[in-house]
Formats: sequence, structure tokens, C-alpha cells
Amino acid sequence: MFAVTILGNNSALPAFDRHPTSQVITLDEHLMLVDCGEGTQMQMTKYKIRRSKINHIFISHLHGDHYFGLIGLITSMGLLGRVQDIHLYAPAPLRELIDMQLRVADTVLPFTLHFHALQQEGTLVREQKFEVSCFRVFHRIECWGFTFREIRPPKKINPKKTLEHGVPSSFFERLKWGEDYTNRDGQIIKNEWVTEPAVKAKSYAYSADTVYDERIAEKVKDVDLLYHEATYLKDLEDRAAKRFHCTTSQAASIARLAGAGKLIIGHFSSKYETLEEFDREVKAIFPNSELAIEGVTYRI
Amino acid sequence: MFAVTILGNNSALPAFDRHPTSQVITLDEHLMLVDCGEGTQMQMTKYKIRRSKINHIFISHLHGDHYFGLIGLITSMGLLGRVQDIHLYAPAPLRELIDMQLRVADTVLPFTLHFHALQQEGTLVREQKFEVSCFRVFHRIECWGFTFREIRPPKKINPKKTLEHGVPSSFFERLKWGEDYTNRDGQIIKNEWVTEPAVKAKSYAYSADTVYDERIAEKVKDVDLLYHEATYLKDLEDRAAKRFHCTTSQAASIARLAGAGKLIIGHFSSKYETLEEFDREVKAIFPNSELAIEGVTYRI
Repeated sequence: MFAVTILGNNSALPAFDRHPTSQVITLDEHLMLVDCGEGTQMQMTKYKIRRSKINHIFISHLHGDHYFGLIGLITSMGLLGRVQDIHLYAPAPLRELIDMQLRVADTVLPFTLHFHALQQEGTLVREQKFEVSCFRVFHRIECWGFTFREIRPPKKINPKKTLEHGVPSSFFERLKWGEDYTNRDGQIIKNEWVTEPAVKAKSYAYSADTVYDERIAEKVKDVDLLYHEATYLKDLEDRAAKRFHCTTSQAASIARLAGAGKLIIGHFSSKYETLEEFDREVKAIFPNSELAIEGVTYRI
Repeated sequence: MFAVTILGNNSALPAFDRHPTSQVITLDEHLMLVDCGEGTQMQMTKYKIRRSKINHIFISHLHGDHYFGLIGLITSMGLLGRVQDIHLYAPAPLRELIDMQLRVADTVLPFTLHFHALQQEGTLVREQKFEVSCFRVFHRIECWGFTFREIRPPKKINPKKTLEHGVPSSFFERLKWGEDYTNRDGQIIKNEWVTEPAVKAKSYAYSADTVYDERIAEKVKDVDLLYHEATYLKDLEDRAAKRFHCTTSQAASIARLAGAGKLIIGHFSSKYETLEEFDREVKAIFPNSELAIEGVTYRI
């Protein structure tokens, strides 16, 4: 399972029961949190996200609607007796802020919080089955997007063929990665005789808060699912530009330029009570689009 | 109207749809906020509290469940274009925390936030119709309670008598404060001839998070309404003491010792899903008690 669950889809001002930005990425048994606006921990309870499963947290930038809920979440994890480490990736000043907040409360977390300051584009996490990297986006202050990519062996075992050719199951992992097998008699069993191409590894990109900039399309090229902000409807392109945000049609254009499989838009301005028009506008340009709706899980 | 509205009645971990501590004091046209746990701004929206009317904010201590929602509230007030000053009374380190959070977001508030560090017991605010003072309570870290007192003239005009004695309405304000009136002929109209004793000025005390300590009863002596924390039921007195908190029966004992008119208890531990037992235990000792319930306004 590779999916993203929306916990908050609104921009700065919470409104109409929409919350500031937060998303949970599920990658098999791993949960990863992307941004953490105020109230994220309550949204996790509401949508039954298991906090204890979160080992990686990524914060795109230090506008409050993307991180004011983080210190509460971390503190609660401590109160719940968490002992596993957490890795936090964020702009550098967040470290001192968290340290200060713990210090004034005379609180020592019962787990280790590893702080990784975002400094350059590239890989942040490489685990057996996925990797996460960051890329710069273009906002009023330093801001980062994140790409989540499955790592999958390129080949799938054909059980019938491996049996026929006498390849032992202990060699299957190496077969999946494309190796040939040499049996006891010195015979080479070609990889392609006993495998098939596996399902393509999937990818998701979260491009955070950004002004319209076509360089982003390069950075998220060919992702299966792209989350792009669309704070405003298309008639407010000037306002969007002034505030380093995007409109529906700009988000859709980036998705098209990037060749994304699918687009989700979010970070809706609190000036809009309803969202139907966002849906219409984005689909007019990029039909395979959806609105980020709180509590909904989008499979990748 | 003098009343307190509960926005959050839970202790550190948000649970069972109960939120961390926050209360709004209404004193005629003034709204004042006491503590501001995460999600307070959403609770204000839910319970239709007019943020724009809040000019004074009091933070008892720097445990997150009492202030993590403050920076979000302040930022939102800025986004909404507030221009009136706000006066914030809190332990000193909060100033640097707020400054840092605004700095990293490159945010300048459109209003002036006056920070008043709590340093000694005494009067914080004195307005025409009320005053607010602070007193120390006994928690794991520096922690303050707050008392809100109406200021009322001691006398009420008797319209029939003022007419009889020819006291002009321009003198009524001075009559209310106890002065005699001298008419053009040099005759003295005694204050008591034309007035009656006014309704007693009311008072509310918020004693924040504290371990059981009878000195608190002195500090909140004779208040009309006392809010006292009761994090645990009475069987967990040891745990309460260890964590610098109180039980139901301890809160009730303080109310009785103080001669309070009425008691409200709150700051319930998230270990309790339901609160009926809190109600039973506190009323057994101090019958005129109520539980702090979110969204409910208690008149003083």
C-alpha cells in the first residue's frame, strides 16, 4: 500500500471546518508525516492515524499553518511513552524553536528526536523499500517539496519457471534484482527465463506552498501522483503571485508539464466556503485531478 | 454580564473530543482569554467567540497544553487585519518564543502585541469596570493563577428620592461612589437619603495547574466562582501529588476553605473517557460545584 491521507487542506486561516496543512504518507508499514499545522494531532485521532507508527516527519517551511501543530504532536508522543526515534527534516531554525519549547516546559522527551536541517536538494531517507528526497520550491520564505519513491526490484519471480529450472528460493531475492543463476553443474539459468518485469515503482510528490514556476514541473517529472497547492481560483492570479501562491489552472499546468499521472490540489484559501469551483477549474485543464479532502486517502 | 466560557477542559493529551485548557472571560463588552492550548482558535470558531473582541490574554504557565495555540491565534488575528493592541501577560520566556516564530516566518503583525512578563503577585490590569490580578500557584514549573474582579460603585441611585431632594442627574455618578450633594442653597443632601447599597461586585478566580496547597484558599478567598483543576479522581491522590496536580476532593476542599460561592473543576486527565464520577466526587464535598464543559458559559 502506497497512499496519502489528507489531514488538513486549508491555507493559513482555519475555516469552514478545514484545517491547516498536514498529510500522512503510508508506504506499507511505514507512516510518514508531511507538514503539521495546528490541530494535526486531533485530526490524527479523528481519522484513526496511528501516531506511534510515524518515524519520519517532513516540514516544508516555517509558516505557522505548516508546523504549529508539531510541538504538540511531539509532546503528546512523549506523554504516551514513545521510545522509538523520530527523524525530523525541516528548515534549520525549527531545531532551536523546539529545544526552547521543551526547555521552558522542563520537558525531556523519552525518545530521540533526530533533527535534520534541509540544506540542499537530494535524498533525505533511503530505506529498503522507499526513498524520500527534497527539492526547492518558490515561496516567500525558504520552502521545500518532497518526493516519495517506492523502491521495487525490477523483476517478478515466475514460480513455475523457477521450479522447472531448479532455482532454489534462497536465490529469489537476487533474481528479483536481475541476476542470473548458476547451478551446481555450472549451467547458467538466464534471469529472463524465470522472471517477468515487475510492477513499476510508484512515486508521489508534495510541492508545498509555491508561486507558479515551471521549474517545479522538472523537479516532479513523471510522478504518479502530484500534490500541488491551489490557494485561489484562476481569476485571482495576481493575488496568488503577490502572495507566492498558485491558482487552480496554474497547478493543473504544472501537472501537465510534469507529465504527472494524477493531480491533487489543496491549501484552499479561507475566503472560499465551498470548493466545487476548484474542482471544475482544475479538471478543465488536467482532467485526472482531485481535490484534497480531509480524511480521504488517495492511493498512489 | 460577567461569565466564563470553557473552550478546553482536558489536560495535556487531547482525548475524547476534549481539548487542552482555554477559557474566555466576558465582562460586559470585554473579552479576555485565559490560557490557549492547541486548537483554541478552532474552538473559538466553533463556539462563536469573537476573536476581535479579545484585548487581554493571560497565560498561566509554559506547559504546552496551556499555550501551544497562542501563536496560531495571534497569527490568525494578524491575517484577519486586526489593528487594536493586545496585552499579553505570561511567564517571561514566551516573549522570545513568539518573537522567534514571527521572525522565521518573516511575519510582522499589523497590531502591537504588548508583552507583560509575570513577575510578582498583584494587579495586572485596572480598567474602569474591572481589575485582573495574578497570584502564584504550585506546579512543576512557574505557574500563575488569575483573579478577575468587577469594579462597581457601592451605591445605587433611588430615582424617586433624588427627584424629591432635587439632585441633578449630572451628579449621579458621584452619588454612586458615596458622595453627599450640596445644593445651591448650601443644603447638604446626605448620600444615604437618595441611594441604596448596590449589588456586590463579583469575582472569579482561575487557579491554573497546581498541586494541593491550602495557601491557594487564602489567595482566592471569598470569590464568587472558583475554577480549580481536578486532573484525577480522588483515588489517585499520590499520582496527582507526584505530577503537581489535584484530585476532585482536593479541589473541593480548597473551594470550601476559600469560602467560594461556587466551584468549577476541569483539566481532566485523558485517562478518563467519561466524567460522571468527577461530578459525584466533587459534589460530595462541595455541593455547589460543576464540571467545566466545553462550549458552556458559566455566569458569575
